[in-house]
Amino acid sequence: MSADAQPTLADVRAAAERIRPFAHKTPVLTCSSLDFMVGASLFFKCENFQKVGAFKFRGACNAVFSLADEEARRGVATHSSGNHAAALSLAARLRGIPAHVVMPRTSRAVKQAAVAGYGGRIVLCEPTLSAREATLAEVVAETGATVVHPYNDPRVIAGQGTAALEFLEDVPSLDVVMTPVGGGGLLSGTAISVTALSPATRVVAAEPVGADDAFRSFQEGRIVPSVNPQTVCDGLLTSLGTLTFAIIRQRVSQIITVTDPATMVAMRHVWERMKIVIEPSAAVTLGALLEGKLAVSGLRVGMILSGGNVDLSELPWGQNK
Amino acid sequence: MSADAQPTLADVRAAAERIRPFAHKTPVLTCSSLDFMVGASLFFKCENFQKVGAFKFRGACNAVFSLADEEARRGVATHSSGNHAAALSLAARLRGIPAHVVMPRTSRAVKQAAVAGYGGRIVLCEPTLSAREATLAEVVAETGATVVHPYNDPRVIAGQGTAALEFLEDVPSLDVVMTPVGGGGLLSGTAISVTALSPATRVVAAEPVGADDAFRSFQEGRIVPSVNPQTVCDGLLTSLGTLTFAIIRQRVSQIITVTDPATMVAMRHVWERMKIVIEPSAAVTLGALLEGKLAVSGLRVGMILSGGNVDLSELPWGQNK
Repeated sequence: MSADAQPTLADVRAAAERIRPFAHKTPVLTCSSLDFMVGASLFFKCENFQKVGAFKFRGACNAVFSLADEEARRGVATHSSGNHAAALSLAARLRGIPAHVVMPRTSRAVKQAAVAGYGGRIVLCEPTLSAREATLAEVVAETGATVVHPYNDPRVIAGQGTAALEFLEDVPSLDVVMTPVGGGGLLSGTAISVTALSPATRVVAAEPVGADDAFRSFQEGRIVPSVNPQTVCDGLLTSLGTLTFAIIRQRVSQIITVTDPATMVAMRHVWERMKIVIEPSAAVTLGALLEGKLAVSGLRVGMILSGGNVDLSELPWGQNK
Repeated sequence: MSADAQPTLADVRAAAERIRPFAHKTPVLTCSSLDFMVGASLFFKCENFQKVGAFKFRGACNAVFSLADEEARRGVATHSSGNHAAALSLAARLRGIPAHVVMPRTSRAVKQAAVAGYGGRIVLCEPTLSAREATLAEVVAETGATVVHPYNDPRVIAGQGTAALEFLEDVPSLDVVMTPVGGGGLLSGTAISVTALSPATRVVAAEPVGADDAFRSFQEGRIVPSVNPQTVCDGLLTSLGTLTFAIIRQRVSQIITVTDPATMVAMRHVWERMKIVIEPSAAVTLGALLEGKLAVSGLRVGMILSGGNVDLSELPWGQNK
């Protein structure tokens, strides 16, 4: 697969084979009280149970294990402070190669600890995009490492598409499959799998109103960058990439927006009713349904819960709230 | 089964058949990072995913569906403010009969709402044991309802034993099975299943040090009542019953105690690492292992996570803690 080629269903299937020894086949849960609230049959694909607590491991693992031995030996690199950095670190450790992770020196201690805990080598830089890019370039120049972008990479997209592959195997006849959208890796990978395997199933994404660049890009037919996004969904701040946007335009039915309060209500319902921990970014799809943003009455709706990495010391609830 | 007979494996199997249409067969999860912390292979039976969020539904459901039609028609009754009340209410609703739940008028609004939400009829009383018992007697005199005790009832014990039945089917060759112990319903039911089906497997219970009546009863060979228990584990405040104690003495290997801080650390690890919500009472077993109270190095240990009903507004974490 060349670096700008759109991955196909065959690439997703190859990714599934490649990551099978390492990634969890995550369970699909249902919840009668949430079904009742929404008036639909909801199926939740639990990527919060994935390695490192997020779907990101699928794409990172596929990218790392796609490298030729010669290339792999020099390691991988990225600039990220979130789930992708942790995922890439673990995937590299599993292949026995170094992962160099450029992080702003202002990034939180818990995030640095997570990356270090998975064996990533952290390279701190100033908290600006130009410093991150310059530092990453230096790391690559020094080490010869392969940069693995968090989403605008066909190997990563193919890896993310494996969640939907499993989902459709486990749950037949879904009317809609929903994902959050940030950079579009999960959404585009999902769209490749779903449109190829189940053409009658619509793919719909949800996005915070305060970070609605994907919604606007989809409407305007060009990438509208994410500028100063305002949302509690810290996984959904990024702009679409050229590759993810091209796939999304072709294969996604609709992008809907959701307010943060609805997302937080949805997150709390999932914790309370389903007894599982999901992060705010993972709750946007249910939040949008609770806000009535999509007509799903009586339908079978698959929701990919993207991750469960929450700092329990920073919950919006608690005894003093 | 008479009201004071010890249930047998046959009773547990009959209970499993009886509740099958209504109860969830809960999943067993594993977590490599918790295995690493403890140095053992841990298997978690997720009763937090059970109906009403706790194993209690199994016993209540078995009791309700064991009643003869004539008896059932007059309904069921209990005094409880916790998971048993919710479980009995739902089981009764599923059979189409009334559930009368005596609750102290000081019981929290969320608990009353849970019982009412499952269709239970709440009868408020003064917050003393004598008032609860007198009020329950009045309700029974008025309605002819059958009292279903939360644990000292062979039908309830047989129902609770179905969790271990499923567990042993799913996970072979466990060296130890651990449960929390409060009134002893889950523990005694588990012990019946495990000792009958897998005699080499030890059954070990964990209990908060501030509510160690079961530990002391087990040591002294007589029921030591729980007096003024002090623990965050609100599901483990009660004393053993005559029936549960008799089974526990015969079939349980060991009862160990655990401090509340260790339990809270364990609960937080489960939320953070496994991405599932469990209540404090469900975390005592892992808490005891983290405290090194049981030698499990290299063993295969089954842990029954008893429930997941937590008030998210009252978490011990949060932004201001």
